[in-house]
Amino acid sequence: MSLFVQKFGGTSVASISHIENVVRKVISARDEGHDVVVVVSAMGDETDRLVALANEVDHQHISGRREMDVLLSTGEQITISLLAMMLLKHGVKAQSYTGRQAGILTDDGHTKARILDIDTAHLKARIEEGVVPVVAGFQGTDDDGNITTLGRGGSDTTAVALAAVLDADECRIYTDVKGVFTTDPRVVEGARCLKEVTFEEMLELASLGSRVLHTRAVELASKYEVPLRVLSSFEDAPGTLITREDESMEQPIISGIAFTRDEAKLTVLGVKDVPGIASAILGPISKANIEVDMIVQNVAADQSTDFTFTVRREDYDQALEILEKVAKNIDAREVAGDNKIAKLSMVGVGMRSHAGVASRMFEVLANESINILMISTSEIKISVVVAEKYLELAARALHSAFDLSEEVS
Amino acid sequence: MSLFVQKFGGTSVASISHIENVVRKVISARDEGHDVVVVVSAMGDETDRLVALANEVDHQHISGRREMDVLLSTGEQITISLLAMMLLKHGVKAQSYTGRQAGILTDDGHTKARILDIDTAHLKARIEEGVVPVVAGFQGTDDDGNITTLGRGGSDTTAVALAAVLDADECRIYTDVKGVFTTDPRVVEGARCLKEVTFEEMLELASLGSRVLHTRAVELASKYEVPLRVLSSFEDAPGTLITREDESMEQPIISGIAFTRDEAKLTVLGVKDVPGIASAILGPISKANIEVDMIVQNVAADQSTDFTFTVRREDYDQALEILEKVAKNIDAREVAGDNKIAKLSMVGVGMRSHAGVASRMFEVLANESINILMISTSEIKISVVVAEKYLELAARALHSAFDLSEEVS
Repeated sequence: MSLFVQKFGGTSVASISHIENVVRKVISARDEGHDVVVVVSAMGDETDRLVALANEVDHQHISGRREMDVLLSTGEQITISLLAMMLLKHGVKAQSYTGRQAGILTDDGHTKARILDIDTAHLKARIEEGVVPVVAGFQGTDDDGNITTLGRGGSDTTAVALAAVLDADECRIYTDVKGVFTTDPRVVEGARCLKEVTFEEMLELASLGSRVLHTRAVELASKYEVPLRVLSSFEDAPGTLITREDESMEQPIISGIAFTRDEAKLTVLGVKDVPGIASAILGPISKANIEVDMIVQNVAADQSTDFTFTVRREDYDQALEILEKVAKNIDAREVAGDNKIAKLSMVGVGMRSHAGVASRMFEVLANESINILMISTSEIKISVVVAEKYLELAARALHSAFDLSEEVS
Repeated sequence: MSLFVQKFGGTSVASISHIENVVRKVISARDEGHDVVVVVSAMGDETDRLVALANEVDHQHISGRREMDVLLSTGEQITISLLAMMLLKHGVKAQSYTGRQAGILTDDGHTKARILDIDTAHLKARIEEGVVPVVAGFQGTDDDGNITTLGRGGSDTTAVALAAVLDADECRIYTDVKGVFTTDPRVVEGARCLKEVTFEEMLELASLGSRVLHTRAVELASKYEVPLRVLSSFEDAPGTLITREDESMEQPIISGIAFTRDEAKLTVLGVKDVPGIASAILGPISKANIEVDMIVQNVAADQSTDFTFTVRREDYDQALEILEKVAKNIDAREVAGDNKIAKLSMVGVGMRSHAGVASRMFEVLANESINILMISTSEIKISVVVAEKYLELAARALHSAFDLSEEVS
């Protein structure tokens, strides 16, 4: 008998009628002959409500994170009980499980704990009895029985981890979108829902802003080779299967185009090309907890170089201020910046075996008179930074030039 | 070093500013040199919110009670985390404990579980380290690790049980009233907050509608001789100490006058005085889940008698309907009823050693031309039923006649 883990996020369990819809998905999977384990998040805005209460108590977070986990874990606990009730009402044998009851052991890194082990003996026995376990995502307990939470993307991680230890045939992540698209359908009309995508591609797409699945869950699924499916809670469609690369399969060159708008770039001009200069520039930025994304440094001409990197747009002003000081210290010529930029990335495992993707990409952009401000590449990704105003035009041109609207047979 | 258990109910933790007030009470007890364990209920209307969600899912309660407990227990879990955060913020070493973490083992009677044992090893160790444990009231886990709740009055019960096993010097129940009054101050202007009352008196007062403390908690405190103090969360006043009877102390004859308005009485007239007739009448009433309070049967004249009992007013119509049928079956003359009655009880352990309380009580009522409809007595209590319209008059007359406004030195 096959086993499915079905995970429903906050928007999929936002109200009692949403939960009724979840029950239909569970019953339908069982009618098809699958055993089912359900993992759920907190209902809609419940987590926000709890965080607001905590902030009202202690907005400076003096009190540490152990109690935050005790608080936040109630969100999922409410959902599991309501869903189990609803399943029982519909005649489905079901039982709710908190993280602890599901045997999820984590380290003691409160609010960002990592799963160490899952004791599945109890769950397995109940599944054999025909029970549908309804497991609280996002939570576990540490060795001392303290409640922990897994941090961002935690419920997805719970679902994938359970699928791995239970050797599930598929881990289905139900969301409010149909699946993983070739690009943002709000920007490119021809954007298409992918039938399949590899773990590697998904990691690049997720971290670049497709935001369907948290990177951490994809990494875990990749590590344990858990077939992962992203699909809609509200429609009956197969969604996107995320799986390992099938060597025998002809891969499309490009799977998707991801982009982010909220970027800014900063350049330190006329930097002496000596060892340690990169860390002299980025050290103070990192100390200020500003995340740096792309970093580009040109080959030096006459012992001096230009050093450019991107940050989130909200961090731009602070980063600029820091750099002005740094530039003086390291005797750089000047600091320049631009906070009206966007990043656009083409992702595809097929890129590895096909030369010329980059040049074709640059050609397409040039034909539209779009100036490329920065370039960065990895094995399965090419990212460019362009002026924000060109983003939609660039995305549509590339989507069309690489035939992403067409289904690959 | 002395140990206090401080319990704060829903109204005392209804908002973050209420919780701040709780923190002051905890700090003040510690400043006086006491170790403290805090027990809390769910915030204000949180339990109502959760019950409403459950009813929305399954208003017919098909799904059983295990999941209800998983749901309801989140209410107290939210409070413990917020209170622990607030204590930590104020520099008090504190840690939250769910029922399970506090070692509270119950039977598996979901939604009305009973505490079997409390494993205090962990709590004791933490108290010795100077930590204030903040324990979720109302909840525990059974032998299989399922979450259970203790039913009505559950948080008080948790507090008293913890006080018993920790050998606490006092269990302080903070409420929205100043303590236990000689009678309802809204009815009798001279009503006075009692300094002390015995467990026995409290049981009679509580079950008669003083509603400050649940009977179950008082019984438990009595059994384990835990000194129990009822006091206000919002004022600095000593409240009422509930303790065992001190033989050496001169007891006041009457401690208080309790009353309930929502009563109705039913009489089956002309009942044959044969064995089994009482159960023939009350059996069908009990089967309909109608609670019966006072029962009076007069001595039989000419082989027939009248059988009278009281029920809650909301059950009056149903009870009357049942009795009409019963009366036919047992060949009784007729059924009469009155749903405009009230019950008034005088309670006091001193009554045991003082004759004449009853006759004095009846005299006082007669002087006010108040007709007594039913009488029932126990060792430390005399209850009368009167027409509802006389209730306030009766309460004031008795309160004054028995000098309850005066402090007994």
